[in-house]
Amino acid sequence: MTADLFTNKNIPYICTPITGKSKEEIITELHSLILEEPDLIEWRLDYFDSISDTTEVLSTLKQLTSASSIPLLVTIRSEKEGGENIPLSEKEKVQLLLEVCENSSVEMVDYEVGNDCVYVKQLREASRKYNKKLILSYHNFDYTPNRQVILKRLYQMEFYGADIAKVAVMPQTKDDVLRLLELTKEANESMDIPVVTMSMGALGSLSRIVGWAYGSIITFGLGVQSSAPGQVPIANLKRMIQMMKDTIGEWK
Amino acid sequence: MTADLFTNKNIPYICTPITGKSKEEIITELHSLILEEPDLIEWRLDYFDSISDTTEVLSTLKQLTSASSIPLLVTIRSEKEGGENIPLSEKEKVQLLLEVCENSSVEMVDYEVGNDCVYVKQLREASRKYNKKLILSYHNFDYTPNRQVILKRLYQMEFYGADIAKVAVMPQTKDDVLRLLELTKEANESMDIPVVTMSMGALGSLSRIVGWAYGSIITFGLGVQSSAPGQVPIANLKRMIQMMKDTIGEWK
Repeated sequence: MTADLFTNKNIPYICTPITGKSKEEIITELHSLILEEPDLIEWRLDYFDSISDTTEVLSTLKQLTSASSIPLLVTIRSEKEGGENIPLSEKEKVQLLLEVCENSSVEMVDYEVGNDCVYVKQLREASRKYNKKLILSYHNFDYTPNRQVILKRLYQMEFYGADIAKVAVMPQTKDDVLRLLELTKEANESMDIPVVTMSMGALGSLSRIVGWAYGSIITFGLGVQSSAPGQVPIANLKRMIQMMKDTIGEWK
Repeated sequence: MTADLFTNKNIPYICTPITGKSKEEIITELHSLILEEPDLIEWRLDYFDSISDTTEVLSTLKQLTSASSIPLLVTIRSEKEGGENIPLSEKEKVQLLLEVCENSSVEMVDYEVGNDCVYVKQLREASRKYNKKLILSYHNFDYTPNRQVILKRLYQMEFYGADIAKVAVMPQTKDDVLRLLELTKEANESMDIPVVTMSMGALGSLSRIVGWAYGSIITFGLGVQSSAPGQVPIANLKRMIQMMKDTIGEWK
Protein backbone atom coordinates (compact mmCIF):
# COMPACT_ATOMS: atom_id res chain seq x y z
CA MET A 1 0.00 0.00 0.00
CA THR A 2 1.32 3.43 -0.82
CA ALA A 3 1.52 5.91 2.00
CA ASP A 4 -1.46 7.82 0.70
CA LEU A 5 -3.83 4.89 0.19
CA PHE A 6 -6.06 6.19 2.93
CA THR A 7 -5.95 9.78 1.85
CA ASN A 8 -7.42 8.89 -1.52
CA LYS A 9 -10.95 10.24 -1.74
CA ASN A 10 -12.42 7.21 -3.45
CA ILE A 11 -13.72 5.58 -0.30
CA PRO A 12 -14.79 3.09 0.82
CA TYR A 13 -12.02 0.57 0.42
CA ILE A 14 -13.50 -2.90 0.29
CA CYS A 15 -11.85 -5.44 2.53
CA THR A 16 -12.53 -9.15 2.62
CA PRO A 17 -11.37 -11.72 5.17
CA ILE A 18 -9.42 -14.95 4.79
CA THR A 19 -10.55 -17.46 7.39
CA GLY A 20 -8.99 -20.75 6.29
CA LYS A 21 -7.65 -23.16 8.93
CA SER A 22 -4.73 -24.72 7.03
CA LYS A 23 -2.14 -23.18 4.76
CA GLU A 24 -3.69 -24.99 1.79
CA GLU A 25 -7.17 -23.65 2.58
CA ILE A 26 -5.77 -20.16 3.01
CA ILE A 27 -3.96 -20.13 -0.31
CA THR A 28 -7.00 -21.55 -2.09
CA GLU A 29 -9.14 -18.89 -0.44
CA LEU A 30 -6.74 -16.16 -1.52
CA HIS A 31 -6.97 -17.27 -5.13
CA SER A 32 -10.74 -17.09 -5.19
CA LEU A 33 -10.75 -13.76 -3.32
CA ILE A 34 -8.39 -12.17 -5.82
CA LEU A 35 -11.04 -12.67 -8.49
CA GLU A 36 -13.38 -10.41 -6.52
CA GLU A 37 -10.79 -7.60 -6.63
CA PRO A 38 -11.00 -6.33 -3.06
CA ASP A 39 -8.92 -3.28 -2.13
CA LEU A 40 -7.61 -4.99 0.98
CA ILE A 41 -7.45 -8.56 2.29
CA GLU A 42 -7.59 -9.32 6.00
CA TRP A 43 -5.95 -12.51 7.17
CA ARG A 44 -7.81 -13.58 10.30
CA LEU A 45 -4.88 -15.37 11.88
CA ASP A 46 -7.01 -16.56 14.80
CA TYR A 47 -8.63 -19.10 12.42
CA PHE A 48 -5.22 -20.59 11.53
CA ASP A 49 -4.54 -24.03 12.99
CA SER A 50 -0.79 -23.40 13.21
CA ILE A 51 -1.06 -20.03 14.95
CA SER A 52 1.34 -21.25 17.69
CA ASP A 53 4.04 -21.96 15.12
CA THR A 54 5.64 -18.62 14.27
CA THR A 55 7.73 -20.05 11.45
CA GLU A 56 4.62 -21.50 9.85
CA VAL A 57 2.78 -18.19 10.25
CA LEU A 58 5.59 -16.27 8.61
CA SER A 59 5.97 -18.74 5.75
CA THR A 60 2.22 -18.59 5.10
CA LEU A 61 2.42 -14.80 5.09
CA LYS A 62 5.27 -14.97 2.62
CA GLN A 63 3.13 -17.07 0.30
CA LEU A 64 0.18 -14.71 0.71
CA THR A 65 2.14 -11.57 0.00
CA SER A 66 3.94 -13.14 -2.99
CA ALA A 67 0.75 -14.43 -4.55
CA SER A 68 -1.04 -11.09 -4.78
CA SER A 69 -0.33 -7.39 -4.79
CA ILE A 70 -3.48 -6.60 -2.83
CA PRO A 71 -2.52 -5.02 0.51
CA LEU A 72 -2.73 -7.45 3.42
CA LEU A 73 -4.01 -6.74 6.92
CA VAL A 74 -3.19 -9.19 9.72
CA THR A 75 -5.63 -9.57 12.61
CA ILE A 76 -5.66 -11.93 15.58
CA ARG A 77 -9.10 -11.57 17.09
CA SER A 78 -9.28 -13.48 20.38
CA GLU A 79 -12.46 -15.13 21.59
CA LYS A 80 -13.46 -12.28 23.90
CA GLU A 81 -13.12 -9.92 20.91
CA GLY A 82 -15.49 -12.04 18.83
CA GLY A 83 -12.77 -14.19 17.26
CA GLU A 84 -11.65 -17.77 17.65
CA ASN A 85 -10.48 -19.63 20.72
CA ILE A 86 -6.71 -19.37 20.29
CA PRO A 87 -3.99 -21.13 22.30
CA LEU A 88 -1.94 -17.95 22.78
CA SER A 89 -1.79 -15.70 25.83
CA GLU A 90 -2.15 -11.95 25.21
CA LYS A 91 1.60 -11.66 25.56
CA GLU A 92 2.22 -14.39 22.98
CA LYS A 93 -0.31 -12.80 20.66
CA VAL A 94 1.53 -9.49 20.82
CA GLN A 95 4.83 -11.28 20.33
CA LEU A 96 3.46 -12.87 17.17
CA LEU A 97 2.22 -9.54 15.84
CA LEU A 98 5.63 -8.01 16.54
CA GLU A 99 7.20 -10.82 14.50
CA VAL A 100 4.74 -10.13 11.70
CA CYS A 101 5.73 -6.46 11.73
CA GLU A 102 9.42 -7.25 11.66
CA ASN A 103 9.50 -10.24 9.32
CA SER A 104 6.80 -9.91 6.71
CA SER A 105 5.72 -7.50 4.03
CA VAL A 106 2.10 -7.11 5.14
CA GLU A 107 0.72 -3.59 5.01
CA MET A 108 -1.20 -3.39 8.25
CA VAL A 109 -1.88 -5.02 11.57
CA ASP A 110 -4.95 -4.70 13.78
CA TYR A 111 -5.00 -4.72 17.57
CA GLU A 112 -7.83 -4.33 20.09
CA VAL A 113 -7.45 -1.00 21.88
CA GLY A 114 -8.78 -2.25 25.23
CA ASN A 115 -5.67 -4.33 25.89
CA ASP A 116 -2.84 -3.34 28.23
CA CYS A 117 -1.34 -0.05 27.09
CA VAL A 118 2.14 -1.56 27.24
CA TYR A 119 1.16 -3.96 24.47
CA VAL A 120 -0.46 -1.22 22.45
CA LYS A 121 2.68 0.91 22.69
CA GLN A 122 4.95 -1.99 21.75
CA LEU A 123 2.89 -2.64 18.66
CA ARG A 124 2.74 1.02 17.75
CA GLU A 125 6.50 1.30 17.95
CA ALA A 126 7.24 -1.89 16.01
CA SER A 127 4.66 -1.18 13.30
CA ARG A 128 6.09 2.30 12.84
CA LYS A 129 9.65 1.02 12.78
CA TYR A 130 8.86 -1.58 10.11
CA ASN A 131 6.64 0.71 8.14
CA LYS A 132 3.32 -1.04 8.77
CA LYS A 133 0.07 0.77 9.44
CA LEU A 134 -1.64 0.10 12.74
CA ILE A 135 -5.41 -0.24 13.07
CA LEU A 136 -6.61 -0.01 16.64
CA SER A 137 -10.06 -1.43 17.09
CA TYR A 138 -12.96 -1.78 19.49
CA HIS A 139 -15.52 -4.57 19.24
CA ASN A 140 -18.78 -5.14 21.05
CA PHE A 141 -20.73 -8.20 19.93
CA ASP A 142 -23.52 -7.69 22.47
CA TYR A 143 -24.88 -4.20 21.97
CA THR A 144 -24.17 -0.66 20.77
CA PRO A 145 -22.82 1.41 23.66
CA ASN A 146 -23.91 5.02 23.94
CA ARG A 147 -22.30 7.77 21.92
CA GLN A 148 -19.80 8.91 24.52
CA VAL A 149 -18.51 5.40 25.23
CA ILE A 150 -17.79 4.80 21.55
CA LEU A 151 -16.26 8.25 21.00
CA LYS A 152 -13.98 7.72 24.01
CA ARG A 153 -12.69 4.51 22.45
CA LEU A 154 -12.09 6.21 19.12
CA TYR A 155 -10.29 9.11 20.77
CA GLN A 156 -8.19 6.62 22.74
CA MET A 157 -7.09 5.03 19.45
CA GLU A 158 -6.08 8.43 18.13
CA PHE A 159 -4.24 9.15 21.38
CA TYR A 160 -2.26 5.93 20.98
CA GLY A 161 -1.17 7.06 17.54
CA ALA A 162 -3.23 4.60 15.47
CA ASP A 163 -3.19 5.10 11.71
CA ILE A 164 -6.82 4.03 11.52
CA ALA A 165 -9.48 3.81 14.24
CA LYS A 166 -12.04 1.01 13.93
CA VAL A 167 -15.27 0.30 15.79
CA ALA A 168 -17.58 -2.69 15.25
CA VAL A 169 -20.68 -2.92 17.43
CA MET A 170 -23.88 -4.96 17.52
CA PRO A 171 -27.21 -3.15 17.09
CA GLN A 172 -30.35 -4.25 18.89
CA THR A 173 -32.64 -1.83 17.08
CA LYS A 174 -32.50 0.12 13.85
CA ASP A 175 -32.00 3.22 15.97
CA ASP A 176 -28.66 1.75 17.09
CA VAL A 177 -27.62 1.48 13.44
CA LEU A 178 -28.56 5.07 12.64
CA ARG A 179 -26.86 6.30 15.84
CA LEU A 180 -23.65 4.57 14.80
CA LEU A 181 -23.78 6.29 11.42
CA GLU A 182 -24.32 9.71 13.00
CA LEU A 183 -21.49 9.08 15.43
CA THR A 184 -19.22 8.14 12.52
CA LYS A 185 -19.73 11.58 11.07
CA GLU A 186 -19.00 13.20 14.42
CA ALA A 187 -15.86 11.12 14.92
CA ASN A 188 -14.71 11.90 11.43
CA GLU A 189 -15.14 15.62 11.97
CA SER A 190 -13.34 15.60 15.31
CA MET A 191 -10.42 13.26 14.61
CA ASP A 192 -7.20 13.51 12.63
CA ILE A 193 -7.06 9.87 11.56
CA PRO A 194 -9.43 7.92 9.30
CA VAL A 195 -12.29 6.10 10.95
CA VAL A 196 -13.86 2.73 10.13
CA THR A 197 -17.15 1.81 11.74
CA MET A 198 -19.68 -0.92 11.31
CA SER A 199 -22.90 -1.99 12.88
CA MET A 200 -22.95 -5.78 12.78
CA GLY A 201 -25.65 -8.39 12.12
CA ALA A 202 -28.23 -8.38 9.35
CA LEU A 203 -29.83 -5.24 10.81
CA GLY A 204 -26.51 -3.45 10.87
CA SER A 205 -25.61 -4.22 7.29
CA LEU A 206 -27.08 -0.86 6.24
CA SER A 207 -23.92 0.61 7.78
CA ARG A 208 -21.73 -1.57 5.58
CA ILE A 209 -23.54 -0.20 2.52
CA VAL A 210 -23.85 3.52 3.38
CA GLY A 211 -21.17 4.04 6.06
CA TRP A 212 -18.82 5.58 3.49
CA ALA A 213 -21.18 8.54 3.12
CA TYR A 214 -20.62 9.23 6.84
CA GLY A 215 -16.87 8.90 6.48
CA SER A 216 -16.14 5.24 7.22
CA ILE A 217 -13.24 4.46 4.90
CA ILE A 218 -13.30 0.65 4.84
CA THR A 219 -16.22 -1.75 4.53
CA PHE A 220 -15.82 -5.47 5.10
CA GLY A 221 -17.46 -7.74 2.55
CA LEU A 222 -17.90 -11.44 2.46
CA GLY A 223 -15.45 -13.32 0.28
CA VAL A 224 -15.55 -17.05 0.81
CA GLN A 225 -16.62 -17.23 4.44
CA SER A 226 -17.99 -14.66 6.86
CA SER A 227 -15.70 -13.48 9.66
CA ALA A 228 -18.32 -11.35 11.39
CA PRO A 229 -22.13 -11.35 11.43
CA GLY A 230 -23.85 -9.28 8.74
CA GLN A 231 -21.08 -9.20 6.15
CA VAL A 232 -22.48 -8.73 2.66
CA PRO A 233 -21.00 -10.67 -0.29
CA ILE A 234 -18.31 -8.48 -1.78
CA ALA A 235 -19.83 -8.51 -5.28
CA ASN A 236 -23.19 -7.20 -3.96
CA LEU A 237 -21.48 -4.64 -1.78
CA LYS A 238 -19.47 -3.34 -4.71
CA ARG A 239 -22.52 -3.22 -6.98
CA MET A 240 -24.65 -1.34 -4.46
CA ILE A 241 -21.97 1.17 -3.56
CA GLN A 242 -21.08 1.76 -7.21
CA MET A 243 -24.73 2.32 -8.15
CA MET A 244 -25.09 4.81 -5.32
CA LYS A 245 -21.92 6.63 -6.29
CA ASP A 246 -22.91 6.76 -9.95
CA THR A 247 -26.21 8.30 -8.87
CA ILE A 248 -24.84 10.79 -6.39
CA GLY A 249 -21.79 11.93 -8.30
CA GLU A 250 -19.25 13.84 -6.28
CA TRP A 251 -19.87 13.47 -2.53
CA LYS A 252 -18.39 16.78 -1.46
CA MET B 1 -55.64 3.49 -2.50
CA THR B 2 -56.88 1.56 0.45
CA ALA B 3 -57.08 3.40 3.74
CA ASP B 4 -54.10 1.53 5.08
CA LEU B 5 -51.73 2.05 2.15
CA PHE B 6 -49.53 4.22 4.30
CA THR B 7 -49.67 2.05 7.37
CA ASN B 8 -48.19 -0.86 5.45
CA LYS B 9 -44.65 -1.48 6.68
CA ASN B 10 -43.18 -2.16 3.27
CA ILE B 11 -41.87 1.35 2.72
CA PRO B 12 -40.77 3.21 0.73
CA TYR B 13 -43.53 3.64 -1.80
CA ILE B 14 -42.06 4.64 -5.12
CA CYS B 15 -43.72 7.58 -6.82
CA THR B 16 -43.02 8.84 -10.30
CA PRO B 17 -44.19 12.08 -11.93
CA ILE B 18 -46.13 12.75 -15.11
CA THR B 19 -44.99 16.01 -16.65
CA GLY B 20 -46.55 16.04 -20.12
CA LYS B 21 -47.88 19.29 -21.56
CA SER B 22 -50.78 18.00 -23.65
CA LYS B 23 -53.40 15.36 -22.92
CA GLU B 24 -51.84 13.12 -25.59
CA GLU B 25 -48.37 13.42 -24.07
CA ILE B 26 -49.77 12.73 -20.62
CA ILE B 27 -51.58 9.56 -21.65
CA THR B 28 -48.52 8.32 -23.57
CA GLU B 29 -46.40 9.05 -20.51
CA LEU B 30 -48.80 7.16 -18.28
CA HIS B 31 -48.58 4.09 -20.48
CA SER B 32 -44.81 3.99 -20.32
CA LEU B 33 -44.79 4.68 -16.57
CA ILE B 34 -47.16 1.80 -15.88
CA LEU B 35 -44.51 -0.56 -17.21
CA GLU B 36 -42.18 0.59 -14.42
CA GLU B 37 -44.77 -0.41 -11.81
CA PRO B 38 -44.55 2.56 -9.46
CA ASP B 39 -46.63 2.46 -6.26
CA LEU B 40 -47.94 5.95 -6.88
CA ILE B 41 -48.09 8.34 -9.84
CA GLU B 42 -47.96 12.10 -9.38
CA TRP B 43 -49.59 14.23 -12.04
CA ARG B 44 -47.73 17.53 -12.05
CA LEU B 45 -50.67 19.57 -13.24
CA ASP B 46 -48.54 22.73 -13.43
CA TYR B 47 -46.92 21.31 -16.59
CA PHE B 48 -50.31 20.94 -18.29
CA ASP B 49 -50.99 23.43 -21.09
CA SER B 50 -54.73 23.42 -20.43
CA ILE B 51 -54.48 23.99 -16.68
CA SER B 52 -56.87 26.96 -16.97
CA ASP B 53 -59.58 24.78 -18.48
CA THR B 54 -61.17 22.90 -15.58
CA THR B 55 -63.26 20.70 -17.85
CA GLU B 56 -60.14 19.62 -19.72
CA VAL B 57 -58.29 18.95 -16.46
CA LEU B 58 -61.13 16.79 -15.17
CA SER B 59 -61.50 14.87 -18.41
CA THR B 60 -57.75 14.20 -18.47
CA LEU B 61 -57.96 12.99 -14.89
CA LYS B 62 -60.80 10.70 -15.85
CA GLN B 63 -58.68 9.18 -18.57
CA LEU B 64 -55.71 8.80 -16.22
CA THR B 65 -57.69 7.12 -13.46
CA SER B 66 -59.49 4.81 -15.90
CA ALA B 67 -56.30 3.73 -17.63
CA SER B 68 -54.50 2.46 -14.53
CA SER B 69 -55.22 1.25 -11.04
CA ILE B 70 -52.06 2.86 -9.66
CA PRO B 71 -53.03 5.51 -7.08
CA LEU B 72 -52.83 9.04 -8.46
CA LEU B 73 -51.56 12.13 -6.65
CA VAL B 74 -52.35 15.57 -8.08
CA THR B 75 -49.94 18.43 -7.51
CA ILE B 76 -49.90 21.99 -8.79
CA ARG B 77 -46.46 23.32 -7.97
CA SER B 78 -46.28 27.04 -8.72
CA GLU B 79 -43.11 28.72 -9.88
CA LYS B 80 -42.12 29.98 -6.45
CA GLU B 81 -42.44 26.41 -5.17
CA GLY B 82 -40.07 25.11 -7.84
CA GLY B 83 -42.77 24.31 -10.39
CA GLU B 84 -43.89 25.83 -13.67
CA ASN B 85 -45.06 29.34 -14.45
CA ILE B 86 -48.83 28.82 -14.35
CA PRO B 87 -51.52 31.30 -15.36
CA LEU B 88 -53.61 30.75 -12.19
CA SER B 89 -53.77 32.90 -9.10
CA GLU B 90 -53.41 31.12 -5.75
CA LYS B 91 -57.17 31.36 -5.37
CA GLU B 92 -57.78 29.78 -8.77
CA LYS B 93 -55.25 27.07 -8.01
CA VAL B 94 -57.08 26.18 -4.82
CA GLN B 95 -60.39 26.28 -6.69
CA LEU B 96 -59.02 23.80 -9.21
CA LEU B 97 -57.76 21.47 -6.47
CA LEU B 98 -61.19 21.66 -4.80
CA GLU B 99 -62.76 20.61 -8.11
CA VAL B 100 -60.29 17.75 -8.35
CA CYS B 101 -61.28 16.58 -4.86
CA GLU B 102 -64.98 16.78 -5.66
CA ASN B 103 -65.05 15.53 -9.23
CA SER B 104 -62.36 12.93 -9.75
CA SER B 105 -61.27 9.64 -8.33
CA VAL B 106 -57.68 10.57 -7.60
CA GLU B 107 -56.28 9.33 -4.30
CA MET B 108 -54.34 12.34 -3.06
CA VAL B 109 -53.68 15.99 -3.54
CA ASP B 110 -50.60 17.98 -2.52
CA TYR B 111 -50.56 21.58 -1.32
CA GLU B 112 -47.74 23.84 -0.14
CA VAL B 113 -48.14 24.47 3.59
CA GLY B 114 -46.80 28.02 3.47
CA ASN B 115 -49.90 29.32 1.71
CA ASP B 116 -52.75 31.22 3.38
CA CYS B 117 -54.25 29.08 6.13
CA VAL B 118 -57.73 29.71 4.77
CA TYR B 119 -56.75 27.86 1.59
CA VAL B 120 -55.11 25.06 3.52
CA LYS B 121 -58.26 24.61 5.63
CA GLN B 122 -60.53 24.63 2.59
CA LEU B 123 -58.46 21.91 0.96
CA ARG B 124 -58.30 19.89 4.14
CA GLU B 125 -62.09 20.01 4.46
CA ALA B 126 -62.80 19.18 0.83
CA SER B 127 -60.24 16.39 0.64
CA ARG B 128 -61.65 14.82 3.78
CA LYS B 129 -65.22 15.17 2.55
CA TYR B 130 -64.42 13.50 -0.77
CA ASN B 131 -62.19 10.89 0.76
CA LYS B 132 -58.88 12.06 -0.67
CA LYS B 133 -55.65 12.10 1.25
CA LEU B 134 -53.92 15.46 1.68
CA ILE B 135 -50.16 15.88 1.48
CA LEU B 136 -48.97 19.19 2.84
CA SER B 137 -45.50 20.07 1.63
CA TYR B 138 -42.62 22.46 2.11
CA HIS B 139 -40.03 23.12 -0.62
CA ASN B 140 -36.79 25.01 -0.57
CA PHE B 141 -34.83 24.93 -3.83
CA ASP B 142 -32.06 27.17 -2.52
CA TYR B 143 -30.70 25.58 0.62
CA THR B 144 -31.41 23.31 3.60
CA PRO B 145 -32.75 25.37 6.48
CA ASN B 146 -31.69 24.50 10.00
CA ARG B 147 -33.30 21.69 11.94
CA GLN B 148 -35.81 23.79 13.85
CA VAL B 149 -37.09 25.60 10.75
CA ILE B 150 -37.80 22.30 9.00
CA LEU B 151 -39.34 20.67 12.08
CA LYS B 152 -41.63 23.69 12.54
CA ARG B 153 -42.90 23.25 9.00
CA LEU B 154 -43.50 19.54 9.53
CA TYR B 155 -45.31 20.18 12.81
CA GLN B 156 -47.41 22.83 11.07
CA MET B 157 -48.49 20.22 8.51
CA GLU B 158 -49.52 17.89 11.31
CA PHE B 159 -51.36 20.73 13.04
CA TYR B 160 -53.35 21.41 9.85
CA GLY B 161 -54.41 17.76 9.81
CA ALA B 162 -52.36 16.60 6.83
CA ASP B 163 -52.39 12.87 6.10
CA ILE B 164 -48.76 13.04 5.03
CA ALA B 165 -46.10 15.70 5.70
CA LYS B 166 -43.53 16.30 2.95
CA VAL B 167 -40.31 18.29 2.88
CA ALA B 168 -37.99 18.73 -0.13
CA VAL B 169 -34.89 20.88 0.36
CA MET B 170 -31.68 21.62 -1.51
CA PRO B 171 -28.36 20.64 0.05
CA GLN B 172 -25.21 22.69 -0.40
CA THR B 173 -22.93 20.19 1.31
CA LYS B 174 -23.07 16.51 2.13
CA ASP B 175 -23.58 17.53 5.73
CA ASP B 176 -26.92 19.06 4.70
CA VAL B 177 -27.96 15.68 3.26
CA LEU B 178 -27.02 13.78 6.41
CA ARG B 179 -28.72 16.41 8.61
CA LEU B 180 -31.93 15.98 6.63
CA LEU B 181 -31.79 12.22 7.17
CA GLU B 182 -31.27 12.62 10.92
CA LEU B 183 -34.09 15.13 11.09
CA THR B 184 -36.36 12.68 9.27
CA LYS B 185 -35.86 10.19 12.07
CA GLU B 186 -36.59 12.85 14.67
CA ALA B 187 -39.74 13.99 12.84
CA ASN B 188 -40.89 10.44 12.45
CA GLU B 189 -40.48 9.76 16.17
CA SER B 190 -42.26 12.92 17.22
CA MET B 191 -45.19 13.01 14.77
CA ASP B 192 -48.40 11.05 14.37
CA ILE B 193 -48.52 11.20 10.56
CA PRO B 194 -46.14 9.69 8.01
CA VAL B 195 -43.28 11.85 6.82
CA VAL B 196 -41.72 12.15 3.37
CA THR B 197 -38.42 13.97 3.01
CA MET B 198 -35.88 14.44 0.32
CA SER B 199 -32.67 16.27 -0.20
CA MET B 200 -32.60 17.39 -3.85
CA GLY B 201 -29.91 17.60 -6.51
CA ALA B 202 -27.32 14.96 -7.37
CA LEU B 203 -25.73 15.35 -3.94
CA GLY B 204 -29.06 14.83 -2.23
CA SER B 205 -29.95 11.68 -4.10
CA LEU B 206 -28.48 9.62 -1.27
CA SER B 207 -31.65 10.59 0.63
CA ARG B 208 -33.83 9.21 -2.15
CA ILE B 209 -32.04 5.87 -1.83
CA VAL B 210 -31.74 5.50 1.96
CA GLY B 211 -34.40 7.88 3.32
CA TRP B 212 -36.77 4.94 3.93
CA ALA B 213 -34.39 3.64 6.64
CA TYR B 214 -34.95 6.94 8.47
CA GLY B 215 -38.73 6.70 8.04
CA SER B 216 -39.43 8.59 4.82
CA ILE B 217 -42.33 6.64 3.33
CA ILE B 218 -42.26 7.80 -0.30
CA THR B 219 -39.34 8.28 -2.67
CA PHE B 220 -39.73 10.02 -6.02
CA GLY B 221 -38.11 8.33 -8.98
CA LEU B 222 -37.66 9.41 -12.52
CA GLY B 223 -40.11 7.96 -14.99
CA VAL B 224 -40.02 9.65 -18.35
CA GLN B 225 -38.93 13.15 -17.36
CA SER B 226 -37.58 14.61 -14.14
CA SER B 227 -39.87 16.89 -12.15
CA ALA B 228 -37.24 17.84 -9.57
CA PRO B 229 -33.44 17.88 -9.52
CA GLY B 230 -31.71 14.67 -8.46
CA GLN B 231 -34.48 12.21 -9.20
CA VAL B 232 -33.08 8.75 -9.87
CA PRO B 233 -34.55 6.57 -12.67
CA ILE B 234 -37.25 4.46 -11.07
CA ALA B 235 -35.72 1.16 -12.21
CA ASN B 236 -32.37 1.98 -10.55
CA LEU B 237 -34.09 3.24 -7.43
CA LYS B 238 -36.10 0.03 -7.14
CA ARG B 239 -33.05 -2.15 -7.73
CA MET B 240 -30.89 -0.37 -5.16
CA ILE B 241 -33.59 -0.31 -2.49
CA GLN B 242 -34.49 -3.96 -3.11
CA MET B 243 -30.84 -5.03 -2.87
CA MET B 244 -30.47 -3.14 0.39
CA LYS B 245 -33.66 -4.65 1.80
CA ASP B 246 -32.66 -8.15 0.74
CA THR B 247 -29.36 -7.64 2.54
CA ILE B 248 -30.72 -6.09 5.70
CA GLY B 249 -33.77 -8.28 6.16
CA GLU B 250 -36.31 -6.98 8.63
CA TRP B 251 -35.71 -3.32 9.47
CA LYS B 252 -37.22 -3.34 12.96
